Amino acid sequence: MSKEITSREQDYSKWYNDLILKGGMADYSAVKGCMVIKPYGFALWEKMRDQLDKMFKDTGHVNAYFPLFIPKSFLSKEAAHVEGFAKECAVVTHYRLKNDPDGKGIIVDPEAKLEEELIVRPTSETIIWNTYKDWIQSYRDLPLLINQWANVVRWEMRTRLFLRTTEFLWQEGHTAHATADEAIAETRQMLDVYAEFAEEYMAVPVIKGVKSANERFAGAVDTFCIEALMQDGKALQAGTSHFLGQNFAKAFDVKFSDKENKLEYVWATSWGVSTRLIGALVMAHSDDDGLIMPPRIAPLQVVIVPIFKGPEQKAALDVKVNEITKEFKKAGIIVKYDDNDNNRPGWKFAEYEMKGVPVRIAIGMRDLENNVVEVARRDTKEKKSVSLDGLTATITQLLEDIQQNMFNKAKAYRDSHITPANSWEEFEKLLDDKGGFISAHWDGTTETEEAIKDKTKATIRCIPLNNVQEEGKCILTGNPSKERVLFARAY
Amino acid sequence: MSKEITSREQDYSKWYNDLILKGGMADYSAVKGCMVIKPYGFALWEKMRDQLDKMFKDTGHVNAYFPLFIPKSFLSKEAAHVEGFAKECAVVTHYRLKNDPDGKGIIVDPEAKLEEELIVRPTSETIIWNTYKDWIQSYRDLPLLINQWANVVRWEMRTRLFLRTTEFLWQEGHTAHATADEAIAETRQMLDVYAEFAEEYMAVPVIKGVKSANERFAGAVDTFCIEALMQDGKALQAGTSHFLGQNFAKAFDVKFSDKENKLEYVWATSWGVSTRLIGALVMAHSDDDGLIMPPRIAPLQVVIVPIFKGPEQKAALDVKVNEITKEFKKAGIIVKYDDNDNNRPGWKFAEYEMKGVPVRIAIGMRDLENNVVEVARRDTKEKKSVSLDGLTATITQLLEDIQQNMFNKAKAYRDSHITPANSWEEFEKLLDDKGGFISAHWDGTTETEEAIKDKTKATIRCIPLNNVQEEGKCILTGNPSKERVLFARAY
Repeated sequence: MSKEITSREQDYSKWYNDLILKGGMADYSAVKGCMVIKPYGFALWEKMRDQLDKMFKDTGHVNAYFPLFIPKSFLSKEAAHVEGFAKECAVVTHYRLKNDPDGKGIIVDPEAKLEEELIVRPTSETIIWNTYKDWIQSYRDLPLLINQWANVVRWEMRTRLFLRTTEFLWQEGHTAHATADEAIAETRQMLDVYAEFAEEYMAVPVIKGVKSANERFAGAVDTFCIEALMQDGKALQAGTSHFLGQNFAKAFDVKFSDKENKLEYVWATSWGVSTRLIGALVMAHSDDDGLIMPPRIAPLQVVIVPIFKGPEQKAALDVKVNEITKEFKKAGIIVKYDDNDNNRPGWKFAEYEMKGVPVRIAIGMRDLENNVVEVARRDTKEKKSVSLDGLTATITQLLEDIQQNMFNKAKAYRDSHITPANSWEEFEKLLDDKGGFISAHWDGTTETEEAIKDKTKATIRCIPLNNVQEEGKCILTGNPSKERVLFARAY
Repeated sequence: MSKEITSREQDYSKWYNDLILKGGMADYSAVKGCMVIKPYGFALWEKMRDQLDKMFKDTGHVNAYFPLFIPKSFLSKEAAHVEGFAKECAVVTHYRLKNDPDGKGIIVDPEAKLEEELIVRPTSETIIWNTYKDWIQSYRDLPLLINQWANVVRWEMRTRLFLRTTEFLWQEGHTAHATADEAIAETRQMLDVYAEFAEEYMAVPVIKGVKSANERFAGAVDTFCIEALMQDGKALQAGTSHFLGQNFAKAFDVKFSDKENKLEYVWATSWGVSTRLIGALVMAHSDDDGLIMPPRIAPLQVVIVPIFKGPEQKAALDVKVNEITKEFKKAGIIVKYDDNDNNRPGWKFAEYEMKGVPVRIAIGMRDLENNVVEVARRDTKEKKSVSLDGLTATITQLLEDIQQNMFNKAKAYRDSHITPANSWEEFEKLLDDKGGFISAHWDGTTETEEAIKDKTKATIRCIPLNNVQEEGKCILTGNPSKERVLFARAY
């Protein structure tokens, strides 16, 4: 092994950090709570971003870009919104540095104080709806289906690489509609897009649901979410899609004239996923030997390692491998031939295992003679000898198999970790001993939800869509309930 | 015409703003100096970004992401660097808002003051070199070839849409090398990449050169640039590539052990282009009727407008146009069939002219009978009837012709606006009457350069690469000079 990784059993949290740092995904930075996304981690983000971007465009959205800064007064216009974000805002107060007259180096120039402070966007509803005011006059201007890829800042006290960082990268969709129904349909459509992306590309099964009032986005009427389950039994919110009603339209006075020439407030949605998805991906799939990348978004799908002695053998292998990589590339397989002389095959095996490259191919002289290569898949660690004839088709199929196997494995784990609890004792015991989602009755009040959270650190992750309606009694209070909701401890 | 545009002759500056605003490229925002990049403008930026990104990757670079914030002390570590940027820094001093106890709304919480202020990055050399310190130990870690796509903030007093905005989008490459020669070669390679992109994709001819000491990047040993010429005779710096020597390695103590195990400071480059390129593109090509997009990066290359009466004719046209668009898309042509019922053909013609779509195709019933369409090219405004047979090939060729014609036209203008001046009178007269680049002798001193700037507002745009060496006398001082340099008034 090239690098030591803490095992999951030993310390799950340290295991995660080891993978992120040693797998070349990210690094700590000199700025508290901010991380550096390293090239391998960023290549993964690019694959995720490009696929999501395609899905957004296929559903009729276009990209735009709005300012990084939000005037302080804007944030205050929607009451719930400012309440939700005021405590974690980076505030720009000055626009110039100068030399300290006392010779103590560079200081903030007190004369360059802004009249109104600017907030580094924690999310962009306010600046965007202030802009939409100018863009929307008539029903002909609707719907407005805009997305933005951007960095945002939320001043977090406790941060974790990818999962919770002060600055993070994300996309935020902000749409404007003529009717509530259309806006709700949009909210649901984007939730479906997120779920499809998580399941089909990240191989992470998710539960679609709606948040309780307490967990709702600050300023939303309804927050829909996809919830995933990590290997330690904790849940992770992987994406949210908000129906904002007319809240922001009213806060920024955005009205349109409908077909009857009547003025009405516009209906809104917003929806986002972030670099947090990378944390989810890592925690859902990886093992004690390193990362495991799902083939469809792996920055590198196949690595080929030559095993040889001397330049003559190397030359013979090069010829064959160049043929193979050429064919692979034609078939759309992302392949790297690692013939770097500085490292030995064993080191390379450990390195690519660490980085979670789905398929490793080793080829030596005897393989060449036998017209075979050794193929190792990262997910199951199976190794076998495979004929060079039809290798491209074999590997294409193998990548699909790995993708499917990763999803199935994660889904089996998730499905076996949705457990009903029918008494408070059972509820607590399940949380402590088994983890995962606990399906339990709740009386629907914020007080009860908070009491449960105080007692157990478990929160309501969501009320699943199309939830079974079933009479019951609240797990804590015994008050009547008409459906079960999903509780879990969460990231 | 759907929208009024000020003519270039009337007011060049207003013409530019009209194009940006009415062409749907960008909009002003509520934050002083910051703009909103609108969907059409952003689609153009995406095309430019994707092509540049491909060229960076083809030359061995990878992307990463570094923090938005830079600790104030970092900026101060390289003396020239802080000198260059201190006067235009947005400074974050607090991390929380709260309710004013006196009930005056939301205020900055004085208790949430940062120990050390954070600067919103105006450029990332300092935070990146502070990180490279941890990443580079040995010559085996070099070269490090990293690029980042990011937003940056420079607090400008006078801003113009795209050309100079407080926040802008850009890419910044930051590379680390074992030798000065290798770093210089990288600097020059990226200059070539920029020049190729400007000429081959933007159809904007550029002059490659090196900056005088006075115009050098703050912290660079040498700044190379590409300079373009706008239609009003003013120059525009379109991209820069800096050889940073060991300045940042020394400021952040980044050393590597070479093959002989000797410790040495690392050599550096940085290079960037920004959304400013969009301003250059607009000002280089557009006319009094609107934007003109070069086909290779046009967000939309071909628009098809149906001309019909009643649903029966429409249905007949639809069949044919669907065939055409299908074939176009297969050939990689970005096409839109605008059959929106709300607008009449004349309105659409004006709209796409405004937006600079390279080719417009109109098709009516008589065209259908005659097996032709009407093809209008945006650059020359020529219209002609073209056979439906082989239309895809015809249009593919036409797009190439337009691309070439736009470049040729811009180059002819640029070439005819590089004028030698041999006396101060001639120099001043040329600047006022003709504009463009003035090729003149200069004595090589910063004092003379500044005196010329004070008198005429002209600056040295660059000393062209492979410049002819020619004895002469400085245009202002009469002191000896060994080569001509290019002066111009500039954006």
